[in-house]
Amino acid sequence: MYPRIQKLRKLFSKNNIDAFLVTKDVNIRYLTNFSASESWLLITPRKIFYITDFRYILELEKGLKKGIEIIQYQTSFYHKLTDLLNKEKVKRLGIDERHFTHAQYKAMVKILPKTTRLVEANELVEQLRVIKEKYEILQIKKALEIHDLALKFLKRIVKPGKTENEVFRKLENFIKEHNVGFSFAPIIASGVNACFPHAHVTQRVIKNNEPVLIDMGIDFNGYKSDLTRMFFLGKIAPHIRDAAEAVREAQQRAIKVIRAGISAAEVDAQARKYLEEKGLAQYFGHALGHGVGLEIHEDPRLSQKNSSILKEGMVITVEPAVYIPHKFGIRIEDMVLVTKKGCKILSDYID
Amino acid sequence: MYPRIQKLRKLFSKNNIDAFLVTKDVNIRYLTNFSASESWLLITPRKIFYITDFRYILELEKGLKKGIEIIQYQTSFYHKLTDLLNKEKVKRLGIDERHFTHAQYKAMVKILPKTTRLVEANELVEQLRVIKEKYEILQIKKALEIHDLALKFLKRIVKPGKTENEVFRKLENFIKEHNVGFSFAPIIASGVNACFPHAHVTQRVIKNNEPVLIDMGIDFNGYKSDLTRMFFLGKIAPHIRDAAEAVREAQQRAIKVIRAGISAAEVDAQARKYLEEKGLAQYFGHALGHGVGLEIHEDPRLSQKNSSILKEGMVITVEPAVYIPHKFGIRIEDMVLVTKKGCKILSDYID
Repeated sequence: MYPRIQKLRKLFSKNNIDAFLVTKDVNIRYLTNFSASESWLLITPRKIFYITDFRYILELEKGLKKGIEIIQYQTSFYHKLTDLLNKEKVKRLGIDERHFTHAQYKAMVKILPKTTRLVEANELVEQLRVIKEKYEILQIKKALEIHDLALKFLKRIVKPGKTENEVFRKLENFIKEHNVGFSFAPIIASGVNACFPHAHVTQRVIKNNEPVLIDMGIDFNGYKSDLTRMFFLGKIAPHIRDAAEAVREAQQRAIKVIRAGISAAEVDAQARKYLEEKGLAQYFGHALGHGVGLEIHEDPRLSQKNSSILKEGMVITVEPAVYIPHKFGIRIEDMVLVTKKGCKILSDYID
Repeated sequence: MYPRIQKLRKLFSKNNIDAFLVTKDVNIRYLTNFSASESWLLITPRKIFYITDFRYILELEKGLKKGIEIIQYQTSFYHKLTDLLNKEKVKRLGIDERHFTHAQYKAMVKILPKTTRLVEANELVEQLRVIKEKYEILQIKKALEIHDLALKFLKRIVKPGKTENEVFRKLENFIKEHNVGFSFAPIIASGVNACFPHAHVTQRVIKNNEPVLIDMGIDFNGYKSDLTRMFFLGKIAPHIRDAAEAVREAQQRAIKVIRAGISAAEVDAQARKYLEEKGLAQYFGHALGHGVGLEIHEDPRLSQKNSSILKEGMVITVEPAVYIPHKFGIRIEDMVLVTKKGCKILSDYID
C-alpha cells in the first residue's frame, strides 16, 4: 500500500538499522500522504506506526490507508515510543540527526530501552525524494503551467507608475482565482531593489527604463515551481543589458553540461567561470541552484562545494545572478529535469 | 542600544556561561529587530556578532543599529564561529539545545577550539520573551483591534448557504485591506467539521441551525492575536447550547484564578474540573492555552503537566473546548494579560 515506505526499508540493511524514525513533517507527508504536526512515524521491517496526539486521530483514521497503525500519545511521547521499541524488539533505531534537536536526542537517550541504540541515518528519505516519480514531475509541470499564465498576466500589468505592492496584490488575486497558492513569498524587485538577493515587495514605484526582477513559485498539490524572470521596461542602459546577457549565457552554459553523472559543483563552475570571464563573478554570491519538489529548496544544491553526482529524475533550478550593490540586480532562473544523457528544461516554453 | 541583549547578558553568570549563541530566527529578531535566515547571533559580555551570508549584508548594514558587528561567512559557517570564539576567548558557550539539531551539535563539537565547551542553556531568550514589555502589549492590542473589526465583518457575512471557503476568501480580502496578515491559517469550521481541533477550511456549505467555529489571528508588526468565536446560526439544539455554556463557564472559572504566582497546571485544572463535572472532560483533549507574542504558540503552556508559575506581564490564551466525534465541536478562546493580583482580559470587549 505504501511503495515509498517499501523503498525506504530497502535502505535499512546498508545503514545497519532495523527501524527508522521519521521526524520531519514533509518526509512523513511524502511517505504517507498525510502530515500532522508534532507527530512521528516509526517504521520497522513489517510495521508502520503513526504516533500522534488526540487532535489528529479522526483525520488520520479517515486519511490513511491500511497498513499504518495509529498510536495516540497523551502525556509522554517518548514513553509511547519506548513501549513500541520494546514490543517490536528494535535494536538499532535510525534517526536523521538533522531533523532532531539536540534536546530531543538527549531526552530519547535517557528513556530508550537498554536493548535499543540510536544510529545516525541521515538523508534516507531525502535519497528517495531527490529522484522524482512520474506523478511528481506531472505535479511540477502543472505548477509551471499556472506559473506561465501568471507571467503572461504580469506582462500586462507590470508598468511604470505602479508600485511593487500593487503588482503583488494583483498577482495574488490572479493566483487565488486559479485555486492555487504561492510556494514562497514572491519577490517583485524594481530598479535598485533587485540588488538584494532576497528582496521584499515594497511600496517603491516602478519607473520607466529600469529592470524589474520577479522571482515566484506556484504550489500545486504540494509540489512547487520556482522561476525568476526579468521585465525590462523602456530603454535599458547598455551595462545592465550586458549584465543580463552575461547571466543568460552563464545559465545556458550550465544547462548544457547537466546530465546524469556530472557533479553539482561542475555545473555551478560552468556558470561561475563564464561570469568570471566577464568580470562579474564577485557579484554572484550564492549557489547556482537547488532541487525543488515538496520543498522549495531541497537536495541537490548546485553549489561550489557540493561534489555529489546528479542523477536521472532530479529536478533542479539553474539561477545565475549578479547583484551590483546600490545599483541593480539580475537573476534568471529556470527548472530542469536531469535525464540520462542531458536534461529537459521544464520551463523553456515560459517567456 | 540593545537593552534586551543587556538583560540576556545578566543571565550568563547564573547559567555558568561566558557567551551565548542564538540560533532561532525569532529570538534573533527579538534581540536585534532583524532576522535573516541561516544566520546566528554570538553574544559575549562586551560584543555582539551577527554571523550571516552574502545575501543579507546590505540589508543588515541598513537595518542594524550600532553595537553589532556583521560577520560574513562564505564556505564554512563553523570555521568563522571558531575564529570568533578563539579571538574572544570564550570558555563556556551557552546554546539552546532545543533550537540546535543533533547534527549541528556534532559538527560544532568537532570544530570547536580546545578551550571552548558547549553548555546547555535552554530558554534564556524565552525567559525574557514571556514577560511582555509595554511596547509589546501595545502591538498585541493593535492586533486585537483589527481582529475585532474582522469579527464584526464576519458577523455580517457568515450566513447559511455560503461555503466555508467563500467566507474565508472574503475574510482574507478584509484583512488585506487593513494592511495586516493572518498569524496562522484561519479555521472556519461549520457543523460537524468543528469536531476536528485543527479543522481546515473546506467547501462545505454552512447550514441553518448549526454552530460555526472561527479561530483566527492577526499579525501586527510581528505580534499576534489569537481568538476563537462561535457563531450560532438559527436555532441551535439544546445539547449543543449546553456544551457551549459549559465551555464558557469553564473558561470563566479558569480566568478567575489567573494571577501572578499560580501554576499553569492549576489554571488548566480549573477548566478541566468543571468540564468533568459536566461529563465533558474526555472530549477536551488539548491544553487550556498558551503564550502568544512574536510566535503564535509560545511559553507558557497552560497544560496539565506544566507546573511552572505564571508571572506578571505574561500574555496567554484561555481556550477550553469540547469535540464530540462525528457530531460537533465548541471552543471559546480569549487572550489575557497576567497581572500581580489577577489578570486583564485583553479581548473582553470583542463579541
